[in-house]
Amino acid sequence: MRAEITNLMDAIAPQLQAVDELFEAELRSDLPCVNVLTRHVAKFRGKMLRPTLVLLAGKAAGTLAPAHITIATVVEMVHMATLVHDDVLDEADMRRRGATINHLKGNEAAVMLGDYLISHSYHLCSSLGDQSAARIIARTTNHVCEGELLQLHNRDNLDLDEETYITIVSRKTASLIAASCYLGARFGGADEAAAKALEKFGLSLGIAFQIQDDILDLVGEEREVGKTLGIDVAKRKLTLPIIHFLQHAPHEHQELCRSLLGEPHSLERIRNLITPSDSIAYAQAKARRLVERAKQSIANLPESDTKYTLLTMADFVVDRSR
Amino acid sequence: MRAEITNLMDAIAPQLQAVDELFEAELRSDLPCVNVLTRHVAKFRGKMLRPTLVLLAGKAAGTLAPAHITIATVVEMVHMATLVHDDVLDEADMRRRGATINHLKGNEAAVMLGDYLISHSYHLCSSLGDQSAARIIARTTNHVCEGELLQLHNRDNLDLDEETYITIVSRKTASLIAASCYLGARFGGADEAAAKALEKFGLSLGIAFQIQDDILDLVGEEREVGKTLGIDVAKRKLTLPIIHFLQHAPHEHQELCRSLLGEPHSLERIRNLITPSDSIAYAQAKARRLVERAKQSIANLPESDTKYTLLTMADFVVDRSR
Repeated sequence: MRAEITNLMDAIAPQLQAVDELFEAELRSDLPCVNVLTRHVAKFRGKMLRPTLVLLAGKAAGTLAPAHITIATVVEMVHMATLVHDDVLDEADMRRRGATINHLKGNEAAVMLGDYLISHSYHLCSSLGDQSAARIIARTTNHVCEGELLQLHNRDNLDLDEETYITIVSRKTASLIAASCYLGARFGGADEAAAKALEKFGLSLGIAFQIQDDILDLVGEEREVGKTLGIDVAKRKLTLPIIHFLQHAPHEHQELCRSLLGEPHSLERIRNLITPSDSIAYAQAKARRLVERAKQSIANLPESDTKYTLLTMADFVVDRSR
Repeated sequence: MRAEITNLMDAIAPQLQAVDELFEAELRSDLPCVNVLTRHVAKFRGKMLRPTLVLLAGKAAGTLAPAHITIATVVEMVHMATLVHDDVLDEADMRRRGATINHLKGNEAAVMLGDYLISHSYHLCSSLGDQSAARIIARTTNHVCEGELLQLHNRDNLDLDEETYITIVSRKTASLIAASCYLGARFGGADEAAAKALEKFGLSLGIAFQIQDDILDLVGEEREVGKTLGIDVAKRKLTLPIIHFLQHAPHEHQELCRSLLGEPHSLERIRNLITPSDSIAYAQAKARRLVERAKQSIANLPESDTKYTLLTMADFVVDRSR
């Protein structure tokens, strides 16, 4: 699967390269101490999922324009900003096999570097000809923050229900992925209906993506995933498998799980409790249904290599182990 | 002085009221937990210096338009975002006589709430007809972050020189005050020369304002100033009086001061060391010269009540005790 994805991506490799270059050029400062920090962020750039979706949605709906490179870079900067601030919130030490900024330079530098990234994303976005993209990006970051604040508010809430979890995930993760697809399509010349179809694709895909991330945080292999795992249970952030477990497992298992959440070094014991249950499978099935819904959203798009790539990527989101 | 300022402000009281209302309306969320946090921020809104300057610059250069209310609200949101994140960086407990967000709700909520404010400021700014204001606001926040990062980089640097201090202060504080004046003038119909004159006014005034803030942090009365004092010396952030003292005081006083910086509960001893020296007076004189330069920048503006208000405000910046 991974090899096929890599081959399919060849079609947008030059544009992704351009995004990389613009990302670096935009962040460059006349202050050396700032460049040291931004160079470190560049190291843990990862899947480029959001820029990829901007470009593929643009191609699927029409043709790529210079604005796509700008928008793809903007969404990647927004994403990196949320990662940097997320790591402060999570007190995470490792991200993409490297030390996090907060671990390396302290929380203060991480807070300010996240601000620097978000500021540059808006700066770049406001270089476009009209305000529409900037307005949509800023509305999206409003939602991202709301999702994060709702999640924070529900830390320690062991009665969190699935509906609230989906609200959190929709805002904090899926909204930016949906906006990437929508803006890619719009700037590719799509009409509102086609752009909305791609937005729906991104929204369902984004929720599925976060569910898979949360499954990996719980039962993934740290060496493979490449970042600190078990953060959700350590921070008593309930995710879908745990929410399901706390509602459906035998009563004494529920009680044991409740008592273990937030306890130091309890990840292994929680894993051993949950793995034999059907809660992981439940979350995986939910993610798979969302991927099917995502694919269904773009069924009406004309057939093309790009559409095939989007459909293949959608499957990959729930099949990945990192 | 304070009474005169209050009277002079009467001319823009309705607009400041509109800014207040727009500020609240824009931040309102469908999530109650978000509204609880933003209501708390509203409590420590303060002098409204930046919105006031947007409005006065607009009036001084031409006429006020609806865009002035938008821009004034945007710069106030940006300012509040920097305060909230500053308090995280400073681990401050008190701000405008109330508990800070980080003290009350934890660093995580403060980080995310600052992000929520900055996101909303860009969202509001991108509602304007063209991109120019958004572009200038985002360039300004780039500079604000650079100033903060440069300051962070120089924590513990007891050899910090005055030039670097002025660079820090220009970017982290004065750039937003300058942008407020520039945008106010531009949207009031000023030509580029008049807008640039007001920008220069704001830049000099902003540096003077921060020097005065730093003097108050060192030798102010906490009850009067209304926020945690002594943060700069506790965090070994060198400010102008200390920079001067470490270069000009008798050698043994310099050494004592160096050894006290960052020590717990050393504020009183540092005060006792610095007060008899001429380092406070040196910083005050520098701030006063900057205020004179600010006033000089707008000497060519036609005489008006608004211009008189700007000149009076400039004096007030260095005469205030809170």
